[in-house]
Amino acid sequence: MQPIERVDDLFAHQRAVRAFADRDVDEALVERVLAAATRAPSGSNTQPWRFVVVRDPGVKAQLGEAYEDALRETYGGRGGGAGAAGPERTPWTRVPVLIVACVQVPARTGQAGFQTGASIYPACQNLMLQARALGLGTVLTTMHRRRRERIHEILGIPAGYDTAAIIPLGWPTQPYGRSRRPPAASVTMRDRWDPARE
Amino acid sequence: MQPIERVDDLFAHQRAVRAFADRDVDEALVERVLAAATRAPSGSNTQPWRFVVVRDPGVKAQLGEAYEDALRETYGGRGGGAGAAGPERTPWTRVPVLIVACVQVPARTGQAGFQTGASIYPACQNLMLQARALGLGTVLTTMHRRRRERIHEILGIPAGYDTAAIIPLGWPTQPYGRSRRPPAASVTMRDRWDPARE
Repeated sequence: MQPIERVDDLFAHQRAVRAFADRDVDEALVERVLAAATRAPSGSNTQPWRFVVVRDPGVKAQLGEAYEDALRETYGGRGGGAGAAGPERTPWTRVPVLIVACVQVPARTGQAGFQTGASIYPACQNLMLQARALGLGTVLTTMHRRRRERIHEILGIPAGYDTAAIIPLGWPTQPYGRSRRPPAASVTMRDRWDPARE
Repeated sequence: MQPIERVDDLFAHQRAVRAFADRDVDEALVERVLAAATRAPSGSNTQPWRFVVVRDPGVKAQLGEAYEDALRETYGGRGGGAGAAGPERTPWTRVPVLIVACVQVPARTGQAGFQTGASIYPACQNLMLQARALGLGTVLTTMHRRRRERIHEILGIPAGYDTAAIIPLGWPTQPYGRSRRPPAASVTMRDRWDPARE
């Protein structure tokens, strides 16, 4: 994929990339995407994120096994995740880097709720946009949450944190064009909820 | 604020803007930020977002009242939200546009959970980044959730949807520099959880 320099070209060129070339990602680039992640907003600017950068083949294999289990449970034999027309999904053992986005859970409830997402998913999005700008591919996966206990055991995530996403990072095997979307007007309402656009 | 054209300058220049000039925001710009929002990733690419663009003074007043209630409840007399050194927060009645980001809730549970955030907060972040690139200010607010029932009543949000954030949009009253962040290394772990960076 071509790098992107201009903001005007950025958003429409973010694609879910699940197939990665057998080519390493320099540590300097990983640091670039993480730096972008930490610039995101968070509730009361608490910056409650932690990022586990997984390159260890053993850890990748364990995470991959739990992830495949979760996919099988959800999609059965249908694979899942990849679009039917897309290239074959690279197993996590052969993805150069897996980034596990973690977030501190609110002390009051002891668990991550809907609103907790406001303090970690913008950071994930920054990470993925910065990756795209560098010509790198990513995909936001949350399916690991169906094997949350196992995943947390593998990584040693403590009780005060939860895992929001696991983001594979690598060089795409093919170019990607712009994403397809209906006009924003079709999901925009004026002043009050509009059942016609529900 | 100066517009931003280059991706390299984008992330570090996103700031929480709570004070807005008495100047309207052209509809074409609102459409730009909404178009960016709809380019975001979402679970299984379901694009489950809806955006309520509030310009009606009566609706803004009602939302603002509920929001101030929630702030008072949370922060007492201390105002809340704005940094102590920042300019005074503009009341929602005088913010040009309020964008209410809504998301369809999973049919299985009937309510938005942590993971639901993965399908709406990246869209909110795109919206805010595109706004910043245009020289517009925003801030991600979720405090309305403490008056969720009232807010949903004002807007007519149906049971199958929830509100992720209310994002004020307008022209900042002052310039803003880069955000301050500790080095990403301080929140980055390698292969497994690292209690030293907890």
